[in-house]
Amino acid sequence: MTTTHFFPWERLCGAARDLCAASGSPEAEAELVSQRLLKANLAGHDSHGIIRLAMYMQWMRDGWVEPGRTPEIVRDNGATCLIDGNRGYGQVAAEYAMGVAIERAQAHGIAGVGVTNLSHIGRLADYAISAAKANMLGMVFTATGGKSVLVAPGGGRTARMSTNPMAVGFPSDRDQPIVFDMATSAYAEGKFRVMQDAGAASPENKIIDKDGRPTTNPEDFFSGGAILPAGGYKGYLLNFMVEALAGLITGGGYLGKQENPLFNNCSMMIVIDVSRFRALPEFKEDLEGLVRYLKQSPPQPGEEVLYPGELEARREAERLRTGIPLADKTVQNLQAEMERYGVKVNLLELTQEAPAPPAS
Amino acid sequence: MTTTHFFPWERLCGAARDLCAASGSPEAEAELVSQRLLKANLAGHDSHGIIRLAMYMQWMRDGWVEPGRTPEIVRDNGATCLIDGNRGYGQVAAEYAMGVAIERAQAHGIAGVGVTNLSHIGRLADYAISAAKANMLGMVFTATGGKSVLVAPGGGRTARMSTNPMAVGFPSDRDQPIVFDMATSAYAEGKFRVMQDAGAASPENKIIDKDGRPTTNPEDFFSGGAILPAGGYKGYLLNFMVEALAGLITGGGYLGKQENPLFNNCSMMIVIDVSRFRALPEFKEDLEGLVRYLKQSPPQPGEEVLYPGELEARREAERLRTGIPLADKTVQNLQAEMERYGVKVNLLELTQEAPAPPAS
Repeated sequence: MTTTHFFPWERLCGAARDLCAASGSPEAEAELVSQRLLKANLAGHDSHGIIRLAMYMQWMRDGWVEPGRTPEIVRDNGATCLIDGNRGYGQVAAEYAMGVAIERAQAHGIAGVGVTNLSHIGRLADYAISAAKANMLGMVFTATGGKSVLVAPGGGRTARMSTNPMAVGFPSDRDQPIVFDMATSAYAEGKFRVMQDAGAASPENKIIDKDGRPTTNPEDFFSGGAILPAGGYKGYLLNFMVEALAGLITGGGYLGKQENPLFNNCSMMIVIDVSRFRALPEFKEDLEGLVRYLKQSPPQPGEEVLYPGELEARREAERLRTGIPLADKTVQNLQAEMERYGVKVNLLELTQEAPAPPAS
Repeated sequence: MTTTHFFPWERLCGAARDLCAASGSPEAEAELVSQRLLKANLAGHDSHGIIRLAMYMQWMRDGWVEPGRTPEIVRDNGATCLIDGNRGYGQVAAEYAMGVAIERAQAHGIAGVGVTNLSHIGRLADYAISAAKANMLGMVFTATGGKSVLVAPGGGRTARMSTNPMAVGFPSDRDQPIVFDMATSAYAEGKFRVMQDAGAASPENKIIDKDGRPTTNPEDFFSGGAILPAGGYKGYLLNFMVEALAGLITGGGYLGKQENPLFNNCSMMIVIDVSRFRALPEFKEDLEGLVRYLKQSPPQPGEEVLYPGELEARREAERLRTGIPLADKTVQNLQAEMERYGVKVNLLELTQEAPAPPAS
């Protein structure tokens, strides 16, 4: 049983920012990267949270990501743009791309912006939320590519695809966004790491072993197996779509072709200005009506009909109170990186009290 | 055991065209509707084929669809348009909408065209193929709406959504298109009708009964049950996306709000001119490379890794040879409609020989 420490998210965010800055990131980049990682923790997606920062530091030393790079538009046709991330932080390039997409959708009603040559972009939902906050419907498709050959094609026995996720954000007047973010594989890779660490079995029909046989043992997946597409053949089709939109159109390539060992999160942002079709308040009213109507479906025992993003909004409210839980090993890895770059912060001094166990 | 008749598709298409024309459709509409229905049969999707034509005739008499209506652009912003189908044939309005989307994507690089107030549009793939043939990546999202309350939301016990399909076509130089077309529900409704007629059980985790309990009996679904979303929660999220893109943005509404009993196939077409991002031949080369790479995955026993649309292409080649199989009841229904509108064709005179049973 590993020890868990609990951190107020702002303190941890400050420490992450200090580490980014000390390792070469300009202020705005350090702020963006640390915010994005900690917001993922707040939403309960710890696999996309601060645990990644020590990995980013290693990638930086390996030359896979360079701090302080500025993305640039390399092809500009107004409603469409292609952006080169210049091997920088994915968060910087992808947020820039989404900003351009929003601006172009404001000008043209719809925009498609591709971005390539960038590192890990973190949680896709964040970019879709940026669009939704600008009163746009924002779609993000990411070919996670690079070294992440993880997913078997429909009918296949070995991995040939990545988890190729997509996210969509919908404009609303809620404090918390209506947004979803999903891998087109049965699960994202991180879920199996969690099961592996916990010694837990996977649900059925999620993974196969190195010989293509169904298994529920996460170890089989990590020993040359593969994740199955979400919902069988349909997930394969969606995965193919993401590969084409985000990898092929941008020229970022596909698994099997990419020569660049850089962790590659080629993305396509499609942003729609809803107000070009109908009055925005009417759209928002219908969106609320749809959410209400869906929630009128009586729930399955022990379940609840949630709108996209509702679960994350609840987790965020909870974690603002209880703090961000980090395993001792994660804290140690982070502490080692801070020492390496001369950040004089003792992480364990930043913790808050562990939340009381739930009343039983 | 029902009798099956086999028809050369052109003959059946001619008969369908005659029926459309006799029931009030101008020549071009009769041609388009009959072609689309028969092409669905050729692709093996009989549930979207000529079986629908007798239904269309009934809808026409009920005032749900009117022949000879002309769709019109009601909001035009260049890269985005909103089109009113004027209660006409869905095929006419949706093909017009896709044509506008292609033209606008040629001008702007990307286009979003919504269409509402139209009848059943048939197989979505056809519109995505129109885009792909014009060297565009074409996406079609359809809120099938109207009376089709069929799908339970994630965690819910009763139907609140429709099967809300989506289709995507990819530009290539193949004779047969690279395209997919899928319901965001576990299956389309028609699959359960086929199981029901065959007295077959559904695979597990596809449907629930009227009390929300899992079942494999298609009768339970038709007696107040619901179809589950594809792949569980992910299908629910995609279904929500289609409802927002195709129903809410267009103003076509959502299930629970629509007051119009018209069978409603509100759609959003998003078309991308790939050549605005990179040279089209390079994209096509990478697409072929991706297909080859995927197919290198050794297949599961008895399976095969297919590219999107490959199965349909094979079925088409087969049915061009063996003919379109129609159940006797379908032929009778169609014949009755032909007599009603004075079309002097005896369908049973159009058949070809039944194909030899496969050698065993």
